[in-house]
Amino acid sequence: MLALPRLKAEYLNSLCSEILKRSGVSEVDAAIVSENLVEANLKGHDSHGVLLLPTYVARIGQGIYDVKAKIDILLDSPSITLLDGNWGFGQVIAKRAMEMAIAKAKRNGISYVGVRHSNHIGRLGYYAKMALQEDVIAIMMANSGGPVAPYGGKSPIMGTNPICVAIPSGTFPPLVLDMATSVVAGGKVFDRRERGEKVPGDWLIDHQGKPTTDPANYGPGKGTLLTLGGSVGYKGFGLSLVVDILGGILTGAGITVSKERRPGGNGISIICIDTKQITPVETFKQKTKELIEIVKRSDTRPGFEEVLVPGEPSSRKEIERFQNGIEIPESLWRKIEEIAEELGIDTKSTA
Amino acid sequence: MLALPRLKAEYLNSLCSEILKRSGVSEVDAAIVSENLVEANLKGHDSHGVLLLPTYVARIGQGIYDVKAKIDILLDSPSITLLDGNWGFGQVIAKRAMEMAIAKAKRNGISYVGVRHSNHIGRLGYYAKMALQEDVIAIMMANSGGPVAPYGGKSPIMGTNPICVAIPSGTFPPLVLDMATSVVAGGKVFDRRERGEKVPGDWLIDHQGKPTTDPANYGPGKGTLLTLGGSVGYKGFGLSLVVDILGGILTGAGITVSKERRPGGNGISIICIDTKQITPVETFKQKTKELIEIVKRSDTRPGFEEVLVPGEPSSRKEIERFQNGIEIPESLWRKIEEIAEELGIDTKSTA
Repeated sequence: MLALPRLKAEYLNSLCSEILKRSGVSEVDAAIVSENLVEANLKGHDSHGVLLLPTYVARIGQGIYDVKAKIDILLDSPSITLLDGNWGFGQVIAKRAMEMAIAKAKRNGISYVGVRHSNHIGRLGYYAKMALQEDVIAIMMANSGGPVAPYGGKSPIMGTNPICVAIPSGTFPPLVLDMATSVVAGGKVFDRRERGEKVPGDWLIDHQGKPTTDPANYGPGKGTLLTLGGSVGYKGFGLSLVVDILGGILTGAGITVSKERRPGGNGISIICIDTKQITPVETFKQKTKELIEIVKRSDTRPGFEEVLVPGEPSSRKEIERFQNGIEIPESLWRKIEEIAEELGIDTKSTA
Repeated sequence: MLALPRLKAEYLNSLCSEILKRSGVSEVDAAIVSENLVEANLKGHDSHGVLLLPTYVARIGQGIYDVKAKIDILLDSPSITLLDGNWGFGQVIAKRAMEMAIAKAKRNGISYVGVRHSNHIGRLGYYAKMALQEDVIAIMMANSGGPVAPYGGKSPIMGTNPICVAIPSGTFPPLVLDMATSVVAGGKVFDRRERGEKVPGDWLIDHQGKPTTDPANYGPGKGTLLTLGGSVGYKGFGLSLVVDILGGILTGAGITVSKERRPGGNGISIICIDTKQITPVETFKQKTKELIEIVKRSDTRPGFEEVLVPGEPSSRKEIERFQNGIEIPESLWRKIEEIAEELGIDTKSTA
């Protein structure tokens, strides 16, 4: 196997941004999308990284993404906002939505922002962590594609439907839980397949509904992911339904299986709470820090060296990849080079 | 084995209420607590049913429960409420908290209510479903006792920390997700032990942190429950942390392992959203009903006869137990009879 190219985040960001700009995206929007993608790579979530760039560029060409879209404000009460993204870039829409949710929470203590007609927004943690600078708690849900089967069923009708919660802790790394309500996100299965590895027995069922460890069984017309929970997978299924309803129905975006939701599109619900309007923020952060310390001091189980809190594994990966660069699979890198070439970008001199 | 007494819900409710009243609880409060407990039995969650009555009565005697406590309103802004329960009955405090959350959501679209100094509130679904009559979505979190181990750890420092979400669907049964963020609630382990059965391999670890299927390994000084997720138990652990922070820190109630939280006490956070301030409520309910129908039409996996949505299994149990009565274990019934006798209640003539 060939060594994979390792690219510095800064270079990748700049190249990604240039590709988007030459595809018609504004400079500001291109910067947001690139940052969201490259941050996902840095944090080790390659399924949400620049892997998506060729798809995004193709969808601009197909008119699925409207690079000139303006966001419409459909509802604007003191605590509630409903946005229509008009099929612009999901990252641009979701960032704006989170900014509005934070601002309203700071005025009124708690806020809700819903979003419809948004293309793919990438990794949710990118937006939720914005709230932390303002000492605001962010809860974010996005319905999405799958395929995931309901508990007890085998039909591919649910999405991976992630939930993300960011909590001000004053710690490094910040406390950000960012999780699919399926056992894992689909990208994790593709990753195992690329590496020729099997998946654990509680991830997938085949088209007959039987458990399988073969990642080749995943995808449209084949097997589906299971919902979070193993023997109590009805819990992950319940959470997934909540996300599909809050993300897809409350917002008018459309549920996972609906025709209103474009491929890769997300219906988004955000709840923000301004910590300091409920309790002194320094006490809140101090006590949260203490809780993190308590759980990290736990005696470990056989097979574990330490207890890691949400945000910690990805932060370690981020430090490592920031220093050493991001490995890009050969085939993906060739695709990106091709796109760059078509757009007249010299990939050697972009950074 | 002797046949267990089967008691009608109405009789049990009346007996439970009478015991509480003679223990000093007001008529109104006794009715709330009894209804919460007996509803849990009806729905098949015996761990949250009248099993708790002897403990509650004992705690009144010990002064842990203050039957005369008044609820203080510590914060009262248009969208935010913070309550101090002053160690009254958790059921009475939580019901009041939910009423306030619903009322503020109806005025302002979204609301937050936090509660500190509350004794045990029982089954969360009891409160969350109150929101449905008003077409309000309720999200409720309560930190609690355990013991539950953090992912990768074996120290018993987390609670079962439940999350409950009720969503207006216009369906029967109503859509209420009510789940511990541990694999199961502790009562489920006790139940298996009572019945002489083993537990699934992903529920428990012993005191060395090794997986065990023996329910005798659960409890203080012995093994602990695992967090939801099996091979991805870091997700349940993350959710559990969120509940401990929102339930215990944001409210000032104290985290699961803190001394501020009395045995069995719960720190509560409630978020309510008024559906109709975001989208036409009939459309919302219709689309939610359609989603439920879609998932229920799913082809089933081997070993499953149908797909059940949150609230459905407990509703079926409720219909069955409402008709045929609730089985009370012999030992529990003897305890309840003893308490009744001490309080001068004739258990034969209460109903």
